[in-house]
Amino acid sequence: MAVSSQSVSSQPSSPIKAKQLQQLATQIRRWIVQSTSAADSGHPTSSLSAVELMTDLVFAGTFRYDVEDPEHPANDRLIFSKGHASPLFYALWAAAGQVSEEELMSYRTFGSKLEGHPTARFRFTEAATGSLGQGLSIGLGMALAAKYLDHLPYRTFVLLGDSEMAEGSQWEAIQLASHYKLDNLIGILDVNRLGQRGETMYGYDLEAYQQRIEAFGWKCILVSDGHDHSQVRNAYADACQSTDQPVMIIARTIKGKGVPFLENQEGFHGKPIDKDRLDEALSDIGEIAEPVQGEIAKPDDVQLKPLESDEAEPPDYKIGDELATRDAYGNALCRLAMKYPALVALDGEVCNSTRSKQFRDDYPDRFFEMFIAEQNMVGAATGLALRGKLPFVSSFAAFLTRAFDQIRMLPYSQANVKFVGSHCGVSIGQDGPSQMGLEDIAMFRTIRDSVVLYPCDAVSTEALVEAMAKHRGIAYLRTTRGDTPVIYDINEKFPIGGSKVLRQSDEDQVTLIAAGITLHEALHAHQQLKEHGIATRVIDLYSIKPLDHATVRQAADQTKVIFTIEDHAPEGGLGEAVLTSLSDHATAVNCLAVRKQPLSGSPEKQLDLQGISADAIVDAVMRFVKHDSGASD
Amino acid sequence: MAVSSQSVSSQPSSPIKAKQLQQLATQIRRWIVQSTSAADSGHPTSSLSAVELMTDLVFAGTFRYDVEDPEHPANDRLIFSKGHASPLFYALWAAAGQVSEEELMSYRTFGSKLEGHPTARFRFTEAATGSLGQGLSIGLGMALAAKYLDHLPYRTFVLLGDSEMAEGSQWEAIQLASHYKLDNLIGILDVNRLGQRGETMYGYDLEAYQQRIEAFGWKCILVSDGHDHSQVRNAYADACQSTDQPVMIIARTIKGKGVPFLENQEGFHGKPIDKDRLDEALSDIGEIAEPVQGEIAKPDDVQLKPLESDEAEPPDYKIGDELATRDAYGNALCRLAMKYPALVALDGEVCNSTRSKQFRDDYPDRFFEMFIAEQNMVGAATGLALRGKLPFVSSFAAFLTRAFDQIRMLPYSQANVKFVGSHCGVSIGQDGPSQMGLEDIAMFRTIRDSVVLYPCDAVSTEALVEAMAKHRGIAYLRTTRGDTPVIYDINEKFPIGGSKVLRQSDEDQVTLIAAGITLHEALHAHQQLKEHGIATRVIDLYSIKPLDHATVRQAADQTKVIFTIEDHAPEGGLGEAVLTSLSDHATAVNCLAVRKQPLSGSPEKQLDLQGISADAIVDAVMRFVKHDSGASD
Repeated sequence: MAVSSQSVSSQPSSPIKAKQLQQLATQIRRWIVQSTSAADSGHPTSSLSAVELMTDLVFAGTFRYDVEDPEHPANDRLIFSKGHASPLFYALWAAAGQVSEEELMSYRTFGSKLEGHPTARFRFTEAATGSLGQGLSIGLGMALAAKYLDHLPYRTFVLLGDSEMAEGSQWEAIQLASHYKLDNLIGILDVNRLGQRGETMYGYDLEAYQQRIEAFGWKCILVSDGHDHSQVRNAYADACQSTDQPVMIIARTIKGKGVPFLENQEGFHGKPIDKDRLDEALSDIGEIAEPVQGEIAKPDDVQLKPLESDEAEPPDYKIGDELATRDAYGNALCRLAMKYPALVALDGEVCNSTRSKQFRDDYPDRFFEMFIAEQNMVGAATGLALRGKLPFVSSFAAFLTRAFDQIRMLPYSQANVKFVGSHCGVSIGQDGPSQMGLEDIAMFRTIRDSVVLYPCDAVSTEALVEAMAKHRGIAYLRTTRGDTPVIYDINEKFPIGGSKVLRQSDEDQVTLIAAGITLHEALHAHQQLKEHGIATRVIDLYSIKPLDHATVRQAADQTKVIFTIEDHAPEGGLGEAVLTSLSDHATAVNCLAVRKQPLSGSPEKQLDLQGISADAIVDAVMRFVKHDSGASD
Repeated sequence: MAVSSQSVSSQPSSPIKAKQLQQLATQIRRWIVQSTSAADSGHPTSSLSAVELMTDLVFAGTFRYDVEDPEHPANDRLIFSKGHASPLFYALWAAAGQVSEEELMSYRTFGSKLEGHPTARFRFTEAATGSLGQGLSIGLGMALAAKYLDHLPYRTFVLLGDSEMAEGSQWEAIQLASHYKLDNLIGILDVNRLGQRGETMYGYDLEAYQQRIEAFGWKCILVSDGHDHSQVRNAYADACQSTDQPVMIIARTIKGKGVPFLENQEGFHGKPIDKDRLDEALSDIGEIAEPVQGEIAKPDDVQLKPLESDEAEPPDYKIGDELATRDAYGNALCRLAMKYPALVALDGEVCNSTRSKQFRDDYPDRFFEMFIAEQNMVGAATGLALRGKLPFVSSFAAFLTRAFDQIRMLPYSQANVKFVGSHCGVSIGQDGPSQMGLEDIAMFRTIRDSVVLYPCDAVSTEALVEAMAKHRGIAYLRTTRGDTPVIYDINEKFPIGGSKVLRQSDEDQVTLIAAGITLHEALHAHQQLKEHGIATRVIDLYSIKPLDHATVRQAADQTKVIFTIEDHAPEGGLGEAVLTSLSDHATAVNCLAVRKQPLSGSPEKQLDLQGISADAIVDAVMRFVKHDSGASD
């Protein structure tokens, strides 16, 4: 359904308005240098170059935003991909009357919401930025939400720096935005020529950017003087006429504009003005007779269609069914689709492997093929989540490492994104190590307040996918390539932070803690060890983070040793999570993990090589028991 | 110095040669389907589409390689960025007489060197691939080595798939290759239209690729039929004429070419031919009367200028000097440059922050600005390392996470790359969390056999930079933004895997283990605790991996509790490394780390908020001692 974006006017309605915009720009410049000098920290020159670009976007009628109602569904979005221009970002909102001067001068001080790079702690921040090259993908996600999900007329504007255009993630976003005909996505490229330590690759060659971006199907609008209000406003008017093509405004600007001793000079990146030159700078920028506040045009009223939800059919697996947890993931997505109408799925061209394909086929309007471009996929998911969607991002676990920088930024946006990594571990078999997720548990564990799940069968997978959907926060679930037997009854509950004790007795000498594929190996080992007269407790640690400390501790109290077994590197994974849990406990923990370079070969041989197969677990336990009993003689 | 690449001929020297190439192509096709069917695993259709492209590259005079001398300095390089076409890769070398048929049929079996995706275990593999979108960057690094360092005439050829062109890392490589005028880098883009689960973004629209790649300054050569030997050979002849521009050959091919029931069909990606259709496929491909072996043209003789080395001046810091370890890194690079003539440095547009700038100024021929494009930077470093250089890659620790997928692939190439991540931890101060490295220790620890170092002062930094240079393998060193005092004498030794016990006594109740910035906090805490009558041991764990188990264990034996203190997330870092070391030891370990969302603010406030400042350490220790003595009453 074609949605017309909101109409805009290109010219201020009067000379008074034009004068007001100039005054706003002056006021904003003053605040930029004052706030950074007060903090003795920050990036004034990078902020100064984009003042007209932003002032005329926000206060001349293009940008639509109800400052009384930040939740208005038709508010335009503004993302500062060049997050270090935060002084400008905060000054804009101060100019809108939303931030006091006092608060502005608290910039970068401890506890201030006005942080060095914008985070969700400041209420007008769309998405946390600061790691460059990420904002356009986030904007793309918001534009997808507007155009294809919510059918809302808002636009998403992304302020970009020229240096960050080297980042490949930007070109992923550029490709995908064109592919998805996102004419509601407008990038503003602030070409001030100077990167952090000298000139960028293309300097002031605006046509170089134009040629490249146009080649990917964007409409480009060049602004030869990014400080000329008239040229800037015309560019926005032009941009808002686009149909089916995303738009890049490419503006030649001057880094440090407004303060002659800074203008276009190398060596001033990230440097606040010394307090002893501040007055000179303010004098150069100019005075305002009286404070000026900008008005932001309001968005149109819109009808938001409420999302209807429906109950989900329960899954119907039987104990003993053989299927892969990745299949269960695919089933769960489809089963839960109507219960969670905000749920959308993104995949990196491997949906037939991750099994998100079924959701794609059943709910094509809610599935986004993101091609082999994982960084942009995660950025887009961030944007979707910030627009109220419930995105499930899938690829091979190994390839999610492509987006670690995007993933680590998520907490600062408080973005509710879910991840599912398939083909975890050596047990994928013959494809070999390039395809194996061996570091993913560690990666996701480092994300503050993340949830890290690793179910061993279809029943627990389905339950945990729903738990992820209900959970507010970043969550990751590992799936296995090969078939595994269903071991749980369909009515079993799997709370996040829980675990399952699958085998226990009063004679348990040893505890085996595992998850996913190695849980089944542990169960086989248990049986073999039982036949050798060694009783072992088996714990399914399906929730690696948060972890069920009580159950783990009880096992440590009641058995002589703990073995952890994981199809993952030894570092940062399940084993170290258990060690952390028992950091003040005397019981020893032996961690079995993937320590050798994996090869190609069958899954069985892979597990054996790594010492995490049932046989290997049995050997390890028996060596311990023998040693232990020998020592006690 | 302009180096002419090796001359090539475009036409086979006779009809006999043309026939031989066709036969080689047939033989290679047969091997592709036979080896994957034997393995019942692999990607035959992705391999079949590139047969003529590769056969005519390698066996028709373009490619120069001395099969008797894989170390010949002027050998051309061939990288399969589409690593899943490994059956083709191995079949090529079999056609050159370097792999037996028996070995070919061991493809993907356990222990075989012919793995599912090429790794260094196969001697003709230039670089391990399989995670898509990485090969062009690696090739770029090799081309940089040839053109700017070794002044050798070899070319680097990279076989690319169309799907993987979505990866932003490819566009980083495309930008940088153009910027560096790498006319010795030739990409061959196998446009077979079909990705893993359907058509790619651009299908068979060769001009779409051309338009985009040309926009970045590459010379593009279109091949309308990538199975027409004559067209393919002409393309290579044309490609080898390029000056100052890298070249992309864009060839329209058919996925599954040679086996009609596979050709251009969806649903066959990654599927070997069933054994019951194998004969049909082989019959379609055709027979060869007798085995045929291809000749590879030999490279020209070259003079390799031996690299001269010279002694390094020792550093001359005095105990008490205040300077940042990042400064010491910059100094070390310059100091060691003549001793390690293969040493080169790469940086991601932050050399003034990482301090690699001094090396850039002093040794501009050995410094490569890689702009804000970390994935390509790591790929290029991989290529440089594989060509015998000693690359030191620097950026902010946080931004190295941008390249985790490239980093995790390094062990499979056995590439000797060194990493230095600056601005680690919350102690960077006001820039806030987007700039803070909080997950980097965990990331690098997961890399098999990696070395992870975190020096606390300039002396240990310099020593460890040299240790990294001498060490064979992947190594990472964290540097701190702010000044710290020199605490070591210039003659102190810092072996990898060692540690320093800085304070100890027979009365030690508690051990503090720290590194980097928190080591200094621990020393201050030690002093304060001493004044409270509590003796603490202080260990500088500058080598987090490998870790000095003996010293840590001794401390665990001799003190009641261990506190680890790190400016890093709790997961996967120094604390968990110590926990792993003491996994069978009863002594408790309390891990202090960054657990709260960091804010902007001074370094001091940041450390305090996180409970890793000297005061916070003192509080934590005193709480323990009080509880411990209370418990024993």
